[in-house]
Amino acid sequence: MKVQIFGESHASAIGCSIDGLPAGLPIDLDRLQRFLDRRAPGRSATATTRREADAPEFLCGLLNGHTTGAPIAAIIRNSNTRSADYAGLRRVPRPGHADYPARVRFGNWHDVAGGGHFSGRLTAPLCIAGGIALQELERAGVTIAAHIAELGPERISDEPLDALDMNSAQLAALASHGFPTIDEQAGAAMRERILRAKGDRDSVGGIIECIAYGMPAGIGDPMFDGIENRIARIAFGIPAVKGVEFGAGFEAARKAGSENNDPFRMEDGRVRCATNNAGGILGGLTTGMPIVCRLSVKPTPSIGRAQESVDLDTGSDTELTVGGRHDPAIVPRAVPVAEAACALALLDALLEDGCYPPVPPRTGDIGTTRPTADEN
Amino acid sequence: MKVQIFGESHASAIGCSIDGLPAGLPIDLDRLQRFLDRRAPGRSATATTRREADAPEFLCGLLNGHTTGAPIAAIIRNSNTRSADYAGLRRVPRPGHADYPARVRFGNWHDVAGGGHFSGRLTAPLCIAGGIALQELERAGVTIAAHIAELGPERISDEPLDALDMNSAQLAALASHGFPTIDEQAGAAMRERILRAKGDRDSVGGIIECIAYGMPAGIGDPMFDGIENRIARIAFGIPAVKGVEFGAGFEAARKAGSENNDPFRMEDGRVRCATNNAGGILGGLTTGMPIVCRLSVKPTPSIGRAQESVDLDTGSDTELTVGGRHDPAIVPRAVPVAEAACALALLDALLEDGCYPPVPPRTGDIGTTRPTADEN
Amino acid sequence: MKVQIFGESHASAIGCSIDGLPAGLPIDLDRLQRFLDRRAPGRSATATTRREADAPEFLCGLLNGHTTGAPIAAIIRNSNTRSADYAGLRRVPRPGHADYPARVRFGNWHDVAGGGHFSGRLTAPLCIAGGIALQELERAGVTIAAHIAELGPERISDEPLDALDMNSAQLAALASHGFPTIDEQAGAAMRERILRAKGDRDSVGGIIECIAYGMPAGIGDPMFDGIENRIARIAFGIPAVKGVEFGAGFEAARKAGSENNDPFRMEDGRVRCATNNAGGILGGLTTGMPIVCRLSVKPTPSIGRAQESVDLDTGSDTELTVGGRHDPAIVPRAVPVAEAACALALLDALLEDGCYPPVPPRTGDIGTTRPTADEN
Amino acid sequence: MKVQIFGESHASAIGCSIDGLPAGLPIDLDRLQRFLDRRAPGRSATATTRREADAPEFLCGLLNGHTTGAPIAAIIRNSNTRSADYAGLRRVPRPGHADYPARVRFGNWHDVAGGGHFSGRLTAPLCIAGGIALQELERAGVTIAAHIAELGPERISDEPLDALDMNSAQLAALASHGFPTIDEQAGAAMRERILRAKGDRDSVGGIIECIAYGMPAGIGDPMFDGIENRIARIAFGIPAVKGVEFGAGFEAARKAGSENNDPFRMEDGRVRCATNNAGGILGGLTTGMPIVCRLSVKPTPSIGRAQESVDLDTGSDTELTVGGRHDPAIVPRAVPVAEAACALALLDALLEDGCYPPVPPRTGDIGTTRPTADEN
Repeated sequence: MKVQIFGESHASAIGCSIDGLPAGLPIDLDRLQRFLDRRAPGRSATATTRREADAPEFLCGLLNGHTTGAPIAAIIRNSNTRSADYAGLRRVPRPGHADYPARVRFGNWHDVAGGGHFSGRLTAPLCIAGGIALQELERAGVTIAAHIAELGPERISDEPLDALDMNSAQLAALASHGFPTIDEQAGAAMRERILRAKGDRDSVGGIIECIAYGMPAGIGDPMFDGIENRIARIAFGIPAVKGVEFGAGFEAARKAGSENNDPFRMEDGRVRCATNNAGGILGGLTTGMPIVCRLSVKPTPSIGRAQESVDLDTGSDTELTVGGRHDPAIVPRAVPVAEAACALALLDALLEDGCYPPVPPRTGDIGTTRPTADEN
Repeated sequence: MKVQIFGESHASAIGCSIDGLPAGLPIDLDRLQRFLDRRAPGRSATATTRREADAPEFLCGLLNGHTTGAPIAAIIRNSNTRSADYAGLRRVPRPGHADYPARVRFGNWHDVAGGGHFSGRLTAPLCIAGGIALQELERAGVTIAAHIAELGPERISDEPLDALDMNSAQLAALASHGFPTIDEQAGAAMRERILRAKGDRDSVGGIIECIAYGMPAGIGDPMFDGIENRIARIAFGIPAVKGVEFGAGFEAARKAGSENNDPFRMEDGRVRCATNNAGGILGGLTTGMPIVCRLSVKPTPSIGRAQESVDLDTGSDTELTVGGRHDPAIVPRAVPVAEAACALALLDALLEDGCYPPVPPRTGDIGTTRPTADEN
Repeated sequence: MKVQIFGESHASAIGCSIDGLPAGLPIDLDRLQRFLDRRAPGRSATATTRREADAPEFLCGLLNGHTTGAPIAAIIRNSNTRSADYAGLRRVPRPGHADYPARVRFGNWHDVAGGGHFSGRLTAPLCIAGGIALQELERAGVTIAAHIAELGPERISDEPLDALDMNSAQLAALASHGFPTIDEQAGAAMRERILRAKGDRDSVGGIIECIAYGMPAGIGDPMFDGIENRIARIAFGIPAVKGVEFGAGFEAARKAGSENNDPFRMEDGRVRCATNNAGGILGGLTTGMPIVCRLSVKPTPSIGRAQESVDLDTGSDTELTVGGRHDPAIVPRAVPVAEAACALALLDALLEDGCYPPVPPRTGDIGTTRPTADEN
Repeated sequence: MKVQIFGESHASAIGCSIDGLPAGLPIDLDRLQRFLDRRAPGRSATATTRREADAPEFLCGLLNGHTTGAPIAAIIRNSNTRSADYAGLRRVPRPGHADYPARVRFGNWHDVAGGGHFSGRLTAPLCIAGGIALQELERAGVTIAAHIAELGPERISDEPLDALDMNSAQLAALASHGFPTIDEQAGAAMRERILRAKGDRDSVGGIIECIAYGMPAGIGDPMFDGIENRIARIAFGIPAVKGVEFGAGFEAARKAGSENNDPFRMEDGRVRCATNNAGGILGGLTTGMPIVCRLSVKPTPSIGRAQESVDLDTGSDTELTVGGRHDPAIVPRAVPVAEAACALALLDALLEDGCYPPVPPRTGDIGTTRPTADEN
């Protein structure tokens, strides 16, 4: 499975191409749209007021609602761009943004408007690919959920997701929620904190916890292609992610081995772990326990306050106040993006493993072709 | 640059092949050996008593101490193996080890002795490749250092490495040290804590901080091939690593944007950041500030205590006491491995970028060939 | 450089995304359009009457006529589709087409209309990517030219391109030509032969010769990433290509070593070969001589005659007469596609080598950024 | 499946690492050795007198004669080297060899002795990997055979292999043969021709035809990862291969469409082609017919005659007589290498497709693990 993300914040479109999906997967486009809406801007007081429909146009690879086996390409037009806001950034890079290293890397050719290819807007095509992966994973018996586990300097915490088994109450709490927390009160406190940051012309960060239930054991590869490596490789592609941990993560470093090791137990004829400090991954391979992953999301670097920066044309210190419309916290909108990143990594591992989807034998005899569309 | 690691703990050898290094790089094999010795087992009371010389044999790719441009292959013979220790593990997987998922993945074909391909011993060839990369990076002006930043449940902490500039006192403290901490007292406390764990037939984990000084700005790629993605992809290949963070990492989630953004300042005609919460990376690209990375290393899963496990042949619960010789803490020996992982990721990014090494023009005229070996 | 081609003949669009091009390359879109026009259908009596403007829309990656460093994505809308022509092909596969193996591979989910993703139409996005590569190669001093070297069962032959040096008369003959041959008379005979095949409701194939002048020596890699491997890997992606050879190619097998070896000679202080049986490639590396490549293009499989096939639904033999509009010879339109394939392989090798484009040193000091757009 | 080949002709060893093979494949090492012996030098009057045992040492990845699932690494020691023969080649490159471009690429660091990494000797590790793939393919029902289809300037031709179905008489003729032809008389004439070339201090080339019987239909991928692309990418890595064609290949360009199209027919309830001009591949996918591939092998460039070359140190023309021991024809020894190349490409495509080997469901319940070694 090869996913290529293209686009720039203020170019005519952003999009993705997805190669390697099996043919015949039904894609529910309405459901995909609802998934994309969770990430889309302009939906709530806690987010940027830039409003984009984020309605993807599928160019190819789908026919009658199923994948054809050819690469899927989808684009989203950039309708609501305000390039004028960004003119000065070519000279004075925004602290915490990629403006400065991008200028060194790409010279003045870099499309600085809206952050160009480095914009958080590029997570929309990631969510197209990831949203398709989520649907496919569900068919394979894998459910992914994520929530805001912690927010802001005061560490407002949500209840953790159940790392041992699917908890339907928790999943129900997250399913239809604009602000994904399990504990309503924690969610309210977080929203309030974000609005306070907005009032302060400042921003806050947070931690996203993402869980995948239902992954079979033994998926993944040793060394550089383990499940952790695969998820981290995609997750660090989400702008603002500065840390990725699995299971007990950094806390594992603070446990004794006797405490951190997850004892194996038989349960209804299956091997289970009594605890899940491993986050469902040992040696890069899935253990059959839920995959638990946490991402550290830094506070939005674009803030309304004056900040110290430099004028790259004159080579002198200067001050910068970033205009434009920005989220006081990226975290809420990054929750579906985290789900998308995990989904892409896990589906890819499943497909590579060859145990999904079940493949009929191919002997060149016509009875081996899949049934006609009419029969499905 | 393509690195392939092969071998199993109790096979006849482990090794690596390294493709894509430029020709003509001088490799100091004595220095490489000293680097490998830092990782090798059996060197101190805090480590396993299994003793391996870890002396690599270079099979090809080197001539007269320089790379020839062909792939380098190096192997280390496994001399000191005790397979009998591991016989029972085929039935009863060790908690915290890859035994169980490896059996699901590879069936009984998996070479379970010593963990097989999942053994920490496989970090030796990673250090061969990384040790070569470290030498090459130094020639490119990049210095990498790492230390035990924190150890054990009591969070015994070392002084942090300077995230703004090279600090020669700190580097000197680490250079020739068997137990890499900056603060001698912290080091002594950590060693004591490890010996205590050993006495308890238990183990402890810790956090490694790794820094790269001297990386030019603008190196890396957006999205999935950023510097963070590249380092994480290799670092999660080190057994026992459960978390990777850059700069402020998980603490970035707990800062306000106004605090987390690193202000740009001119300093001696160069762009610098006044703080380095970004860990030298914005948008996947280097900023020119030191690259700061921290790895969470879980406590050694092999402990001498009885643990709960299952008998995979009978499908019943059982108890397991792991024999064999093991480290009460992997962290000290993992420090050079962390350096190796960072070095591989950074050298690869530098080479891919094309700005290193400086390439002479090639016009097919013989004056463009590099000077003869005699002249160098 | 990563190129992904997407689209299906009768989907809403076809296109490509191109990642890894340096920033700041000027792209002449008019010239690119003229290149695409050479491949486009409906231009002459010898080609299909399906008419597509083949005018790409660039979605991102270009700003003010220069690459920004972000991935380029371009699409071409499929305006002139006639799906009704293809309805029966789902049951009765066309001989010589991918219909049958695609049905086995993708089941009835395969978009059979117009050949779907297997259509020759997918060479249009290949030409977008290749046309950009051609412009960039020219700036690097590399000129690519191709012509119809041979056509049809009677082996009507064009004059060969000069394998030792650029021949401006030959290049001029090809530059502005709708039917690319050097020898006008050979071209006329070929056109006549194609029209005769059309009259016979049959088709003819041919051989394309493609040359790249100006490649510096020493580019490429040993083993699987040699220049031949790279070109062949792309060239066999052109539908209808059944053979690829370099230099003397299959004739090399019929020469003595003393005849096939190209003697080295000094010429104006440069190393040259007196003959070029190697086609400019030894050991996978460029020799500095012109790169010579020939592609065998089979006759268009879609012909107007009744052909034997099978009904996959009933499992019985049947007869098929292919409707739709088709080229009696693909060869003329495949000439720019061959140029595109070579250009992509050669530019990729040059970029990977790091000797092109010249990279300024990056020390993080602002003087190292490239000059502003105004100054260029 | 990732194969990395390492080594240089006169380094201490050559070898390969093979990653991605499923666990539990039985490897018959005696049979592998017999396969390697077919390629090994010093076996007959028609080959070089350099004698190497070519006995691989397996370092890891095999246990009790089965793959463990970990990467396999194998090496062959270079015992019989005569570096003195090659000293002068650093200055005066051999015509037809990679010496000159390798010097431009790698400078004087290139290990010129015996051609270094460009030596035909590197096909030995390719044969280790390919020999394993051949065994595995056979278990999947795929048989690969190859022979010398044509030799020398007089085009001495062998009988073609049956492109429609396995012909046991032909396969028997090739199975145990030191000089693989179907027609004994053709073989005798070819051997005589080679000895004549040897007497002339010259060399001859030839064409190898390689067939794979039993590949199921629908394997492969469109565009750049088709079966042709995959085979060509490996085949052009064999030194001396200058052309690769499939099915009718270059002759397809000389047929009418009505003649070149292979009619589909039902035969015993299966779809078959009445002819096989496609060589078993349409649109990059297998058709279920035998895969037919031909490689053009140039005459050995090392010949005993004086040849024109240049002195790279003085920049003047000179003459060169190549010493050392060389084959008057590479073709016979290249036959197993061609089989190895095809086997690697086809096994990789089969594994990627996921339809081989049959994968048991993995639900994390212990009943899903494969049976114990004892039971097999």
